[in-house]
Amino acid sequence: MKFKRSERIVYMTSYLLSHPNELVPLTYFVDKFGQAKSSISEDVQIIKDTFIKEEIGTITTTAGASGGVTFKHKMFYKEADQLISQLCEMLQEKERLLPGGYLFMSDVVGTPSLLNQVGKLIATMYMDEELDAVVTIATKGISLANAVASILNLPVVVIRKDNKVTEGSTVSINYVSGSSRKIETMVLSKRTLPEGSKVLIVDDFMRAGGSITGVMNLMNEFKATVKGVTVLVESKEVKNRLIQDYTSLVKLSDVDEYNQSFTVEKGNCLEKFSK
Amino acid sequence: MKFKRSERIVYMTSYLLSHPNELVPLTYFVDKFGQAKSSISEDVQIIKDTFIKEEIGTITTTAGASGGVTFKHKMFYKEADQLISQLCEMLQEKERLLPGGYLFMSDVVGTPSLLNQVGKLIATMYMDEELDAVVTIATKGISLANAVASILNLPVVVIRKDNKVTEGSTVSINYVSGSSRKIETMVLSKRTLPEGSKVLIVDDFMRAGGSITGVMNLMNEFKATVKGVTVLVESKEVKNRLIQDYTSLVKLSDVDEYNQSFTVEKGNCLEKFSK
Repeated sequence: MKFKRSERIVYMTSYLLSHPNELVPLTYFVDKFGQAKSSISEDVQIIKDTFIKEEIGTITTTAGASGGVTFKHKMFYKEADQLISQLCEMLQEKERLLPGGYLFMSDVVGTPSLLNQVGKLIATMYMDEELDAVVTIATKGISLANAVASILNLPVVVIRKDNKVTEGSTVSINYVSGSSRKIETMVLSKRTLPEGSKVLIVDDFMRAGGSITGVMNLMNEFKATVKGVTVLVESKEVKNRLIQDYTSLVKLSDVDEYNQSFTVEKGNCLEKFSK
Repeated sequence: MKFKRSERIVYMTSYLLSHPNELVPLTYFVDKFGQAKSSISEDVQIIKDTFIKEEIGTITTTAGASGGVTFKHKMFYKEADQLISQLCEMLQEKERLLPGGYLFMSDVVGTPSLLNQVGKLIATMYMDEELDAVVTIATKGISLANAVASILNLPVVVIRKDNKVTEGSTVSINYVSGSSRKIETMVLSKRTLPEGSKVLIVDDFMRAGGSITGVMNLMNEFKATVKGVTVLVESKEVKNRLIQDYTSLVKLSDVDEYNQSFTVEKGNCLEKFSK
């Protein structure tokens, strides 16, 4: 079968996009297309240049016998800023306020096209970290964690707050919920996370940070290194937050349940993007 | 800015892949590239032909003023068969058997690259159905549902089994767990699913089908039409299954906890693919 350059480019673009953060040997394309390495290299160069120009992502070329190309999704400042503004606008809708000062967000974390964008944004912040897994807490963090992990090509590890875990032996810790001051338990199956992993923690909502602190303690039990913490929404009201070093996409403040009013503003994550 | 054909093709391929099941007006590309409609149509034709040849998916062109192109991911028989074989092999590992006849599958549903393939397979089966949402049950179904929904460009609706639902008013039903015969509750926030929606139900594991029957009853409360039910793994042991019409990727049988043995074979989903 003979392939034209344009056909090769369609296939290679599609292949690289669906294999992010993975070293693809040039020989894979050379063999597939029965084409000289020099032609394939030219194809890669065209894709690489267009990915940069159109702000799709980056392609790194490694030389040598075991050489190849690695594609990484990347979001640039402008797109990140637009996405955060869109999120703020969506979350600002009055009907979202729920009893207890929570925000209705199921539609946000339930919309894959939006969530994939959010995943790309979060992944971009930790693109240069060496990571082994994305860790989250059931239930609402899962979709977000999947979106991030899919971009980074990493496994997702789900910590649960119930004990209906049918995943073999588990490690559990008690933690104090920062806002309600109640003692709760979180559980992680031993097999899901190898000891000594480097992890990124992702969750949908952070108030005082009790859950996240719990996750960090649980990570200690697994001798894991926490390389970063990101939440979709943080509540700004909290004075003595249990954790300090995290990024948020959106900040919620001035919650007045009586008047059904609240303020949504951009979180600190844009600081991680160069303009 | 001037674009070469090869550059246009990189961008258009990448754009279509990240906007599945969405009508993209040809004018979007015409305006972006400042190019005649005829050239853009030729570009689309090249992408379309390569997507078919390389079994990536399908592109439908709609003519007229409001015309455009719609990309759909599609998995073909050969790839589906290979994927199911791979799943069988993975799940057949002896150490996966857990007390109670469960299988350890967290690594499977926690690996995005694999899960995206599984999502593509499931999505392909329901590609021609008119659907409004993918419905699943927390916790382990969520990742799978996200993978399917991402391919179909549909929202995910998560039913929960606990009452810690901070999503506004809810509808709940009691159901009888088919295997344990215990009465349990499942809960869905009213806002997450508009009345009269057409849904696809997705879950990770089905034994007697009690949970799925519960989901179907809950869908009745939302006046939803269930267009399909798919599970990753079904347990073949069950004689009087509560539901009959479903597809499974993998079947589990001959579970012998004493000898730590069991059999994994292909489910019925391949019947939905034409060879």
